[in-house]
Amino acid sequence: MPPVDRYVAETTFRVRYAETDAMGIVHHSNYIVFFELGRSHYARERGHSYAEIERSGFILVVSGVQVRYVKAAVYEDLITVKTWIAEMKSRRIVFAYEIVHAETSDLLVTGLTDHIGVDTAGKVKIIPDVWRKWSEG
Amino acid sequence: MPPVDRYVAETTFRVRYAETDAMGIVHHSNYIVFFELGRSHYARERGHSYAEIERSGFILVVSGVQVRYVKAAVYEDLITVKTWIAEMKSRRIVFAYEIVHAETSDLLVTGLTDHIGVDTAGKVKIIPDVWRKWSEG
Amino acid sequence: MPPVDRYVAETTFRVRYAETDAMGIVHHSNYIVFFELGRSHYARERGHSYAEIERSGFILVVSGVQVRYVKAAVYEDLITVKTWIAEMKSRRIVFAYEIVHAETSDLLVTGLTDHIGVDTAGKVKIIPDVWRKWSEG
Amino acid sequence: MPPVDRYVAETTFRVRYAETDAMGIVHHSNYIVFFELGRSHYARERGHSYAEIERSGFILVVSGVQVRYVKAAVYEDLITVKTWIAEMKSRRIVFAYEIVHAETSDLLVTGLTDHIGVDTAGKVKIIPDVWRKWSEG
Repeated sequence: MPPVDRYVAETTFRVRYAETDAMGIVHHSNYIVFFELGRSHYARERGHSYAEIERSGFILVVSGVQVRYVKAAVYEDLITVKTWIAEMKSRRIVFAYEIVHAETSDLLVTGLTDHIGVDTAGKVKIIPDVWRKWSEG
Repeated sequence: MPPVDRYVAETTFRVRYAETDAMGIVHHSNYIVFFELGRSHYARERGHSYAEIERSGFILVVSGVQVRYVKAAVYEDLITVKTWIAEMKSRRIVFAYEIVHAETSDLLVTGLTDHIGVDTAGKVKIIPDVWRKWSEG
Repeated sequence: MPPVDRYVAETTFRVRYAETDAMGIVHHSNYIVFFELGRSHYARERGHSYAEIERSGFILVVSGVQVRYVKAAVYEDLITVKTWIAEMKSRRIVFAYEIVHAETSDLLVTGLTDHIGVDTAGKVKIIPDVWRKWSEG
Repeated sequence: MPPVDRYVAETTFRVRYAETDAMGIVHHSNYIVFFELGRSHYARERGHSYAEIERSGFILVVSGVQVRYVKAAVYEDLITVKTWIAEMKSRRIVFAYEIVHAETSDLLVTGLTDHIGVDTAGKVKIIPDVWRKWSEG
């Protein structure tokens, strides 16, 4: 469950036909993309879009992903990705996610993504101050 | 340009990071998915979602695609897909599309998709009446 | 590292341009698809393709994924997915993966996927005998 | 049909589960990616991989795509992409494709992709000599 003392960004969108597979459900790899949408949305909502940050030379690399699949979504389902910062260190961020069906509130997927910041040459970099403040609430 | 005497559905969304490629732009295959989003949106706006139609046993198969790429979109660009029916026969629909940058109105991509209707066994079927009315405006 | 006392299936293929992202590397979501290729290959090598199993009414649902990203692959890299069974219970399989650069042997990604078997109605089913034998070596 | 007087590159691979959709067939957008695999393979077979060309500062942009879908492929089908150059001008290449089922030889998809060459700044550039020779046979 999203924490009550942290900023939680929510973004809602419909499942695309191209995201389904032969089982008739969303292919499990797409939730990794949905997590990324959640992060992009989180950054934009907090005032510094990831596109803008990346143009400034800071790149947020994904170093780990964990996903737990609870219930499948199908084509045209309206789903909500809730995103928050689970952990923030000087060189590392962990984002946490919960994806629910927007109409039934059924829990679909939970997950974590681990990140380190690098510069355009791939050297590890300290997470920008504007981001580090995000973990304070 | 979208016709003035036809129903034109518009849907606007942001480019995902996962949709970019090593050129730094949206990979050209994704516009085919954006056309599909346009069709889904068109059907929903006109009162009969494609999910609902498909559950009734009518499947709209893609038999052809044509795309012209004018200008590239990049990560986080807000883009608008305009979708309309270019041609409607008893067993065939042609959808037309124009994708523009939602903020600058720059034309990015135009295209057509050709469809035939089939039943769940793959047999060609007459386009449902509710859809055939769509071509009248 | 793949275990020495278990069957390890290896499949090698080239990174596609469409799999890269604006960082110039393989988008992290694609490794989930590469794990799936590893599983498909594993089943085929052991004599019972997943397509065949699925047609018999047994569906292997993904209930969890864990990925650790070590080094990025780029367009046209030849990569090898090594796949083995880490754990096998009556109703659950855990596959393990190691993805390496086929030419340099550099470790790129490691991961685990958790699965349960269901029938076409979604009811949990015992893993087929032919698969359960796989965990014996 | 591929021409008899031109170089035709063939590459064969299996359909991935992730490439299927809720109709149980390969989602139509994936054939655009298969065409790209065909082009990559063509360039590699002719001695100058596209990765190498791109590193030299020449980028082959897609300016148009046409696809005709004849028959659907399903998960684990072995398919062959045949790729050849249909037209070559100083600043433009047209590649042509035929995708067939590798075992039954059934025709699945045909298509064309239109390209212009640009430099890293996006300025139109003359197609490299080594490529222009390709159209001679």
